[in-house]
Amino acid sequence: MSRFLFTIFSVLFSTILFAQNEDSVFIRKLADAVLTDGKAYDNLKVLTKTVGGRLSGSPQMYKAEAWGQKTLKDAGADKVWLQECMVPHWVRGGKDEAKFIANKKEETLDILALGNSVGTGPAGITAPVILINSFEELEKRKDEIKGKIVFYNYKFNPKFVQTFRSYGDAVRYREFGASRAAKYGAVAMLVRSMTHSVDNNPHTGALDYIDSFPKIPAAAVGLWDADKLAKTIQDNKEVKLFLRTNAKMLPDTVGHNVIGELTGSEFPDQYITVGGHLDSWDPAEGANDDGTGCVHSIEVLQALKEIGYKPKHTIRVVLFANEENGLRGGTKYGEEAKAKNEKHIFGLESDAGGFTPRGFSIGLPPEKMQHIREWLPLFKEYGVSDFVQGGGGADVGPLGELLGVPVGELMPDSQRYFDYHHSRNDILANVNKRELELGALNMAILIYLVDKYGLN
Amino acid sequence: MSRFLFTIFSVLFSTILFAQNEDSVFIRKLADAVLTDGKAYDNLKVLTKTVGGRLSGSPQMYKAEAWGQKTLKDAGADKVWLQECMVPHWVRGGKDEAKFIANKKEETLDILALGNSVGTGPAGITAPVILINSFEELEKRKDEIKGKIVFYNYKFNPKFVQTFRSYGDAVRYREFGASRAAKYGAVAMLVRSMTHSVDNNPHTGALDYIDSFPKIPAAAVGLWDADKLAKTIQDNKEVKLFLRTNAKMLPDTVGHNVIGELTGSEFPDQYITVGGHLDSWDPAEGANDDGTGCVHSIEVLQALKEIGYKPKHTIRVVLFANEENGLRGGTKYGEEAKAKNEKHIFGLESDAGGFTPRGFSIGLPPEKMQHIREWLPLFKEYGVSDFVQGGGGADVGPLGELLGVPVGELMPDSQRYFDYHHSRNDILANVNKRELELGALNMAILIYLVDKYGLN
Repeated sequence: MSRFLFTIFSVLFSTILFAQNEDSVFIRKLADAVLTDGKAYDNLKVLTKTVGGRLSGSPQMYKAEAWGQKTLKDAGADKVWLQECMVPHWVRGGKDEAKFIANKKEETLDILALGNSVGTGPAGITAPVILINSFEELEKRKDEIKGKIVFYNYKFNPKFVQTFRSYGDAVRYREFGASRAAKYGAVAMLVRSMTHSVDNNPHTGALDYIDSFPKIPAAAVGLWDADKLAKTIQDNKEVKLFLRTNAKMLPDTVGHNVIGELTGSEFPDQYITVGGHLDSWDPAEGANDDGTGCVHSIEVLQALKEIGYKPKHTIRVVLFANEENGLRGGTKYGEEAKAKNEKHIFGLESDAGGFTPRGFSIGLPPEKMQHIREWLPLFKEYGVSDFVQGGGGADVGPLGELLGVPVGELMPDSQRYFDYHHSRNDILANVNKRELELGALNMAILIYLVDKYGLN
Repeated sequence: MSRFLFTIFSVLFSTILFAQNEDSVFIRKLADAVLTDGKAYDNLKVLTKTVGGRLSGSPQMYKAEAWGQKTLKDAGADKVWLQECMVPHWVRGGKDEAKFIANKKEETLDILALGNSVGTGPAGITAPVILINSFEELEKRKDEIKGKIVFYNYKFNPKFVQTFRSYGDAVRYREFGASRAAKYGAVAMLVRSMTHSVDNNPHTGALDYIDSFPKIPAAAVGLWDADKLAKTIQDNKEVKLFLRTNAKMLPDTVGHNVIGELTGSEFPDQYITVGGHLDSWDPAEGANDDGTGCVHSIEVLQALKEIGYKPKHTIRVVLFANEENGLRGGTKYGEEAKAKNEKHIFGLESDAGGFTPRGFSIGLPPEKMQHIREWLPLFKEYGVSDFVQGGGGADVGPLGELLGVPVGELMPDSQRYFDYHHSRNDILANVNKRELELGALNMAILIYLVDKYGLN
């Protein structure tokens, strides 16, 4: 361990109080509240360990909604209510199974059916498997696809430093690979998981069927097994794949956004929204996706309340329903705000994990970005060092699109996110308490500054 | 998961190539080498899983030295050799045991004897335990200490954002608590572990006995057990503690710095040093302390070699002996450099873990710091966003002190470091492959820039 780093930080600490003004004093108070008395980690523990995975339409979704209402009340919200919306109801229906058969030997593969996919039926599907490395290759070999299971082995690109860029590059195979293969007569689809991880866990996630092609079963396979299968196909004349998934889409059901407010003292009818999504995939606990975003948002309210801050505008914490396979909660929230002609100042989301905070992505024109970058010195001590012109997250998107409200998203460090995302590893143990708290703290700082100074 | 973040990063990616000059092209090549073909993680796997914990003087120390020589040769060093130095030889000697006895009931505590401490003898020590929250309290209650076991329960301060600052604040109890208690007649010492962790693992580390006081046995206790013991002492009239540790200090033995060079093309007799320390505490695998610093440093050499870079100066990778309980390797390296009148340009260390890189601490005067901050845009894409005026790490310290060489240290994100530091959790599973690679990459970028432009 470095014996020197701590002396360096001592020096740092004495110099960072350069802007000993009202804001930095307030922010230090906020930091002390979050770092010594924060509830984010304990709240996340309850959500992950007593509710667990909470897919739209599942019994756990309703447990999560009850957790959200109680936790927002305990955090000190002036008002807590449910906003109803219809949500899709996809069920996995049992254990997903796959094995390949080559040279008369069988080997099991670790898979997870993709969200929204159809099942194979109880007998499963057995068919020759074809290795396809890209959509370009699919098009070239379209005449070989009929009657086969297509295995897309497109790899997460390690050269992108920001892992979300690797995801954006690869996720089209998960989203559209089934329909594009079905177009040429494929009977099922298997896709390499969207991850840089060093383990073999499969990573599920939503697919989008294109209506004009048959709906075929689809699943994701972990990296070790993907490599093994690819090698087996390269080394053998014929490899068959057996796939059994039990998934089905039931009729839409009722879900809810869970909303808690801290009422504005000057402009109670003007809103600042901060949220994450309450639903998660089913293989694990939905810790980083997006339990952390929910507890981040609740902590913003809790910490501001705890130190006695009276916001000028109403601060609304929204735990959105159904981000993962429908975005129905975010859509409902935006539509209702528009229908009621609500005035919204800003929408902030946390949906990129509970990792150490590094920046915010905010959807403002360049000159306004330049203006709010003057706030950056106030964040420096606490982790955020950059405001990137962008936008998002998904759930606050409709608020931006329908009402023209500026929206933004916390950008935590992205390296570990896809190790856990939609896999069995998305559990509390993979959230660091202090990284989580610092994410909440930086969000609270931004909300405070927007409430005080606006975005104009 | 955020559907928007990846589009933001797409936009980012197209704008970051602002400085499409020779350096940014070279650095992109370096990044591609480290991120697609890096050996840091595989090297760390071998070190942690086949050597494991490697305390100075232990058989594993020699295995680690052999690993270092082989790995440096495989990485492409032009020359690899050992630099001999005498190292302390402390042994734990068996399982550490503790229990408290209150109200006729016994309860076991999870402890680890402190490095350099003496043992209790095979019978152990049983004595009344006194709860002391600070050195100030110790002084006030000095008349109550005689014949007792002092339990220091000073807490890691959560308000410091940089965890090294919390460590700097608390570690004096581990380092000097035993002697300060022995001064007033204490028979043994127990200290609350130096960590923000959410588990109960005890964290060991070196103590420094003050020669004028008796050497008493000393151990660290995990946080849950520390809280339990503190509460028991508060709730009961008398609490006894039983402590059995088997530690002893054997005579100094021979150890080695392991050194590998990439010979300079213009100034082969001028050196840039990059290193980490090879020794580690014994409870785990020494993954983040400091296996990561060793493989970071080797990767700098490996990556520069792989892309065909011919350094102007000789780049020396040094895997230092005995940082943890003596600093003998770093001292030897500095002393020998001075005795040989070697010309050194820069010394860089990695000893703060394999976490996502955020900055460098560098020991240069303000005007020179300002000058090298012009390099920061070249780092922006890869994680480092700040150069802090400082210095360190420990092992390159003597190079700075004896020769006046500027020295610096990688500053990874600090939140997780003390969760693992000197505890059973310092294992490979707590190192993320890509965070590790990005640390090595940013070090390689800095070494390249220093080699090319110097620090003046």
